[in-house]
Amino acid sequence: MPRVLDGKVIAEQVRENLKDRIENLRSIGIQPKLVVVLVGDDAASASYVRSKQRMADKLGMAGDVRFLPVTVTQGELIREVEQLNADPTVDGILVQFPLPSHIDTEAVLAAVDPDKDVDGFHPYNVGRYATGSPVIWPCTTAGIYEILKRSDISIAGKTAVIVGRSQIVGWPTGQLLLTHNATVIQCHSKTEDLRKFTLQADILVVAVGQAGLIGADDVRSGATVIDVGINRVDGRLVGDVDFESVQEKAGAITPVPGGVGPLTVTMLMHNTIELATRRRGLEKWGR
Amino acid sequence: MPRVLDGKVIAEQVRENLKDRIENLRSIGIQPKLVVVLVGDDAASASYVRSKQRMADKLGMAGDVRFLPVTVTQGELIREVEQLNADPTVDGILVQFPLPSHIDTEAVLAAVDPDKDVDGFHPYNVGRYATGSPVIWPCTTAGIYEILKRSDISIAGKTAVIVGRSQIVGWPTGQLLLTHNATVIQCHSKTEDLRKFTLQADILVVAVGQAGLIGADDVRSGATVIDVGINRVDGRLVGDVDFESVQEKAGAITPVPGGVGPLTVTMLMHNTIELATRRRGLEKWGR
Repeated sequence: MPRVLDGKVIAEQVRENLKDRIENLRSIGIQPKLVVVLVGDDAASASYVRSKQRMADKLGMAGDVRFLPVTVTQGELIREVEQLNADPTVDGILVQFPLPSHIDTEAVLAAVDPDKDVDGFHPYNVGRYATGSPVIWPCTTAGIYEILKRSDISIAGKTAVIVGRSQIVGWPTGQLLLTHNATVIQCHSKTEDLRKFTLQADILVVAVGQAGLIGADDVRSGATVIDVGINRVDGRLVGDVDFESVQEKAGAITPVPGGVGPLTVTMLMHNTIELATRRRGLEKWGR
Repeated sequence: MPRVLDGKVIAEQVRENLKDRIENLRSIGIQPKLVVVLVGDDAASASYVRSKQRMADKLGMAGDVRFLPVTVTQGELIREVEQLNADPTVDGILVQFPLPSHIDTEAVLAAVDPDKDVDGFHPYNVGRYATGSPVIWPCTTAGIYEILKRSDISIAGKTAVIVGRSQIVGWPTGQLLLTHNATVIQCHSKTEDLRKFTLQADILVVAVGQAGLIGADDVRSGATVIDVGINRVDGRLVGDVDFESVQEKAGAITPVPGGVGPLTVTMLMHNTIELATRRRGLEKWGR
């Protein structure tokens, strides 16, 4: 049987480390603060924002939510972001997606101060993925890295195959693994003969959103399989990987739910602390 | 025998198109202007800068060079860049590399207005590689694209293998081919068993700087081989690919010299015109 990589246990390990860092910062009078901007009253978004607030509270961070009506104009939303940019007590700004269709998401992302961009989506920060500069990795990508690192799965020199190239997960995860010296094969919807590539993977990351996309015949024996997909099938949550069959073949695998998912909100807190530390040039207090 | 892809002929085709675009812009009173900042008196850099000036002249563009002494401070250099940022007649700014060792190259790159960043190296522009926004591609990468496009070599759905991940060529070229829907395998110095990957390439781009790195046994029959290397061996310029043996196997191949090289300065002019057009919102005049 392969190792099942338990995201809840790993997220708890990460939070233990974050508590220490927050304590260090508070000892010199700094309380990292995350502000979420929520447009409209979508129930799922509101619930997700609440879970972020609860975790910030629990860790001893400061948190706030700005509620804006679904009718907010793009200019008003950007002005709200600019106020948060200018507020010296705010370390991380997160604009909750999705935004209403009358708002240009890219323009809003670009309005966030790159030094407060807790999602790592500002073009300036995306550019840093490639330059080896200190980076804020998007939360899911950062969580995948924690899973690999804390499970002693080595990356350098390995073949990493990424299925999916979304800006939120697939693409930055390929960049992260490249930074850590994997040979990276980036696959996507236009890839022909996907299996030819997935069978080469020492580390296979699947982030498409299609239940059952990857089966046992698509996976090399002993590979590490990271399943980012979340799909609802017959009222049950499943990933993009057929867990039952693939777990017989993989060397290690993340389940859905309970794999990558539990890391995401935790890594948002991690990014907030990183930003709080870097913005003040306080590396040693934030470690 | 395979097709030898003649960079000089393709560069001439690109310049013919650029002349039309410049004429369109001049007809409404705009002369695209490129300014090169040259620090020190390195002979090779000075010669390269002169060739850029000559080509700008020949195409009917405006050009200028700012000569700064090798003793210039980083602050002085950045102030020079900021003056060019503020000058409404300047469309493209190029800081010639290499810079003296007392200057932080990344800080200088980040000082260039992204809207005048003719090299495409500003982190903000690098970030755009990934987002599908209109991009200024680094000149060599842009030249590789022209070679493929004008030689009717299709990219979508093909397997593109890039050897080398420099910020100047290897990495952005992988990103460009990904944007055009290739499945991209990014290899580098830490890649184990390089041949296993190069043999999968429909399009193989080699940008390492190591003569003879790629031989006939490393190339799939019929592949397109783009050789970006420039190495001096026994007083002769050669690429990273062993042209003599590989040309028997490849479907198409760029020679060195006379392949990618001739495109580079031409694509610098192309980028200047792109920036001149976009900055003024004049798409239709710049086409």
